[in-house]
Amino acid sequence: MTVPAAPVPWPGAARCAASFSFDVDAESAMLAVDHGHANRMSAMSHQAYGPLVGVPRILKILARHEITSTFFVPGYTAVRYPDVVRSIVDEGHEIAHHGYLHEAMAGLSAEEEAAILDRGTDALEKVTGIRPVGYRAPMWELNWHSPQLLSDRGFLYDSSLMDADHPYELAVGATSLVEIPIQWALDDWEQYCFIPDFSGTGLIESPAKVGEMWRLEFDAMRAEGACYVLTNHPFLTGRPSRAAALESLVSYVCSLDDVWVTHLGAIAEHVRGLGLAPRSVQRPDPTDF
Amino acid sequence: MTVPAAPVPWPGAARCAASFSFDVDAESAMLAVDHGHANRMSAMSHQAYGPLVGVPRILKILARHEITSTFFVPGYTAVRYPDVVRSIVDEGHEIAHHGYLHEAMAGLSAEEEAAILDRGTDALEKVTGIRPVGYRAPMWELNWHSPQLLSDRGFLYDSSLMDADHPYELAVGATSLVEIPIQWALDDWEQYCFIPDFSGTGLIESPAKVGEMWRLEFDAMRAEGACYVLTNHPFLTGRPSRAAALESLVSYVCSLDDVWVTHLGAIAEHVRGLGLAPRSVQRPDPTDF
Amino acid sequence: MTVPAAPVPWPGAARCAASFSFDVDAESAMLAVDHGHANRMSAMSHQAYGPLVGVPRILKILARHEITSTFFVPGYTAVRYPDVVRSIVDEGHEIAHHGYLHEAMAGLSAEEEAAILDRGTDALEKVTGIRPVGYRAPMWELNWHSPQLLSDRGFLYDSSLMDADHPYELAVGATSLVEIPIQWALDDWEQYCFIPDFSGTGLIESPAKVGEMWRLEFDAMRAEGACYVLTNHPFLTGRPSRAAALESLVSYVCSLDDVWVTHLGAIAEHVRGLGLAPRSVQRPDPTDF
Amino acid sequence: MTVPAAPVPWPGAARCAASFSFDVDAESAMLAVDHGHANRMSAMSHQAYGPLVGVPRILKILARHEITSTFFVPGYTAVRYPDVVRSIVDEGHEIAHHGYLHEAMAGLSAEEEAAILDRGTDALEKVTGIRPVGYRAPMWELNWHSPQLLSDRGFLYDSSLMDADHPYELAVGATSLVEIPIQWALDDWEQYCFIPDFSGTGLIESPAKVGEMWRLEFDAMRAEGACYVLTNHPFLTGRPSRAAALESLVSYVCSLDDVWVTHLGAIAEHVRGLGLAPRSVQRPDPTDF
Repeated sequence: MTVPAAPVPWPGAARCAASFSFDVDAESAMLAVDHGHANRMSAMSHQAYGPLVGVPRILKILARHEITSTFFVPGYTAVRYPDVVRSIVDEGHEIAHHGYLHEAMAGLSAEEEAAILDRGTDALEKVTGIRPVGYRAPMWELNWHSPQLLSDRGFLYDSSLMDADHPYELAVGATSLVEIPIQWALDDWEQYCFIPDFSGTGLIESPAKVGEMWRLEFDAMRAEGACYVLTNHPFLTGRPSRAAALESLVSYVCSLDDVWVTHLGAIAEHVRGLGLAPRSVQRPDPTDF
Repeated sequence: MTVPAAPVPWPGAARCAASFSFDVDAESAMLAVDHGHANRMSAMSHQAYGPLVGVPRILKILARHEITSTFFVPGYTAVRYPDVVRSIVDEGHEIAHHGYLHEAMAGLSAEEEAAILDRGTDALEKVTGIRPVGYRAPMWELNWHSPQLLSDRGFLYDSSLMDADHPYELAVGATSLVEIPIQWALDDWEQYCFIPDFSGTGLIESPAKVGEMWRLEFDAMRAEGACYVLTNHPFLTGRPSRAAALESLVSYVCSLDDVWVTHLGAIAEHVRGLGLAPRSVQRPDPTDF
Repeated sequence: MTVPAAPVPWPGAARCAASFSFDVDAESAMLAVDHGHANRMSAMSHQAYGPLVGVPRILKILARHEITSTFFVPGYTAVRYPDVVRSIVDEGHEIAHHGYLHEAMAGLSAEEEAAILDRGTDALEKVTGIRPVGYRAPMWELNWHSPQLLSDRGFLYDSSLMDADHPYELAVGATSLVEIPIQWALDDWEQYCFIPDFSGTGLIESPAKVGEMWRLEFDAMRAEGACYVLTNHPFLTGRPSRAAALESLVSYVCSLDDVWVTHLGAIAEHVRGLGLAPRSVQRPDPTDF
Repeated sequence: MTVPAAPVPWPGAARCAASFSFDVDAESAMLAVDHGHANRMSAMSHQAYGPLVGVPRILKILARHEITSTFFVPGYTAVRYPDVVRSIVDEGHEIAHHGYLHEAMAGLSAEEEAAILDRGTDALEKVTGIRPVGYRAPMWELNWHSPQLLSDRGFLYDSSLMDADHPYELAVGATSLVEIPIQWALDDWEQYCFIPDFSGTGLIESPAKVGEMWRLEFDAMRAEGACYVLTNHPFLTGRPSRAAALESLVSYVCSLDDVWVTHLGAIAEHVRGLGLAPRSVQRPDPTDF
């Protein structure tokens, strides 16, 4: 039987960890669904806001609070905005893998997914000179064969599963991958994203609501000693009032002396150092249903 | 003509009843719609959070407030997570029937539905040693033939109808089934659930809003002497801040000395003991429309 | 050119009017879309809550505040719940026309719509002994031929258009019909309604939000000397906390000494007595687009 | 590589600019999608509310605060409501181009789009005597060929892109067009619009939420020295309480002495006067994905 992930100890006096991560999807999230979206000048400009305006604004927030973050960057974002992606690295943050064109991996064979993984890595390495050690699946949708592909390529960690409040060692054959779980309620897409004929029903929430919701979850995860992973998209949360709400949350979290605020790579290394027994996540067996 | 259900007296000094029930759908809610969802590692992990993390957290909340609850468990959840389901029983809570794979029963023949009912009962009995006496239809969608099927199998109560604030004896041929009504506004699914390509538009509400809404309804139902039945899904409300909001509501409800807080089976037994005249719920007659 | 409706004077010291109207759709709103919804026992019970529980609760609220209201009742609701409909009349309220089975009238010929109008009137008259003088189109969707049909049948007023804050005389050939406008933001359906496989995305708002929104609009309409028409569905707003929020609003409105709170028939009679010049509402001319 | 738009200096002591713009879609937004919507009397009346009631109310608000605004008017709105459109001009506001029938331009050839642009201009000029110098694409959806079409026709500015907080000179061949960016969160459509069988899921937000969200964004954009462009539709925000919320925001913005509140044409002229280097916005190159 699948067993729950156990709480992990945190460095020093920390009782919990917090990481403010960013998915720099930009145009790729739309183009992967339909290349024809490239024909939409306004929609493309909506996505371009992310790297052009959102990322620089976010980098300033992170610098003001002296914290490091992880930016999951589709390869195509690096091709289209190399200077932006290099600026992230220059500021001391981690660049991690997020597909090449933010491809929906569901239904792809291992070979097809492998080719995309390699193309994404190559693009990031070419632009930044660094091979990523972290991965988050586009659409947050991992295939059952994905962990093996990641392990084969030397990735240290994945951040696409949702079955725990704590990171764990995910068993992959005889080896393992650090898994740092996420959740839909800690994503800005559902709160803010509206792009006609692509995503959203028109619901656009106020940063006041979103900031409150994210802080409530932070407070509750802190009480659990958990690993709080927030995900923002610069084309959404890069907007001024949303960035202000995010900074307000960052400021609050950083004001607490028992929270380890860092990028996901650092968390993964810490977890790897704990020597945890790998945990199996089992695929539902069709003979049972 | 169909007549309204009358208010019922409550034990001792209680002016109303309140029950915090849980539907432990886990993977089954997705698999019933499409077995292919089993291929989605991340989505499956999102559902697994319920039994793995949500249920233990909820059990602790219930223990802290010394109340008993009813957990509606699809048979497949018991097959996949037997230890989790047994832990619910060990903590003194009621396990009730919720289909085998959370099957949509609408459109099924009585024979098809009967087979599912029996398969679900067998799974629960095999894992816990106890035959359930309560039933809640998956999707909260009862067929007109369902009450007879439940009555034939010795069920004491159902909790899937929505036409009253009070429980009643639902006439089933010459006999009856206790009905404990529910309502969509007292369900966490509509407030919190987002699973791409399965459920939800992306709307994810804050526990602040949800807790307020549920408390308003509790206060108003208490004033009516009604039976307040809240339904939470551990894969949703098991998340830390939602669990905290639920606990805050439980704490408030338990602080009042005129509320009978218990599991649905106890409410059903109480209602059965009142000897109420069975109430007919009449199917609309097509010759009238 | 179509001209705006002008403000109207109100009786005595009133600066505005307010009417709390109810659409008693019950099962008919679902059955009109698909007779097969009759097979859904739980969904039907959700709709039955309206006449069985919602209407009596609402009648008590209106009685406590000594105000009269208009209940738009599909003929089938009167056939299925004659005692409930008679209780509305007995309490001094107005029964008005809302189709027979809450039929979507869009696309129907004048003959087809006429037959439905007559069937609805007959059902209401048979149950209550009174012919309705007011009409609200099911789905709030009037055809351009509808006003003539209503006028031919002696209706005094309609309440299905949305182009004004004030009632007016709607020109119908050489005669006219009083029109009392409504608006989607003053309807409880969008705020509260969720019925799987029929209506709603799952969004269910808190009465706290809804009550605030409706009060803001009341305050603003009062300042305009307008006619505030709120529409509630007993199967939705009949729920305890929503009814409490409605009562809170009713109580506030009734506490003001410059608001004329009454049923729509009384407003229509008042408007008719003003001898207003009929206003034309012009269909868009396809040669212009 | 595409570079971000730089901040621009504002006149005098202003640190930012704010413009309250209006899209007077009325019936055209529905008719463009399906001419058959003309058959829907109630839906047409819902749209007619905009010019008939919303525009006069909004004009009074603007007059009370002594500010000028830009009204984007589809040609057909001018044909159907010439007096309303002239009243906007008479009050000193700017009329700008918004298509003829609010046509979705996506997928149209340059020739087809050109014909619509000319038809819209002709309609506005015929009714007001003035040729518009500003343009906002219907649906906020510009084609990549649109800027050239606008430039060829002598337009000074466009307001349909979303990739900046500041206006800029958009390179168009050897010349340029002033671009004044907008964003979905500063549009009332997503917050308020519900028209069955046309737009919206039923979500209708309270002006309390909307006003707060828009003010948060204003405060944050002011801190950035940005150009705040709010868009309201008179058929939506013309309703009393929404207009009151808008006025509350206008009042707040106007109370600050470092905000330049004006219409978009004035902002465009100011920007043109700065002699900025045109900025290229590059279409994604399919060979990269």
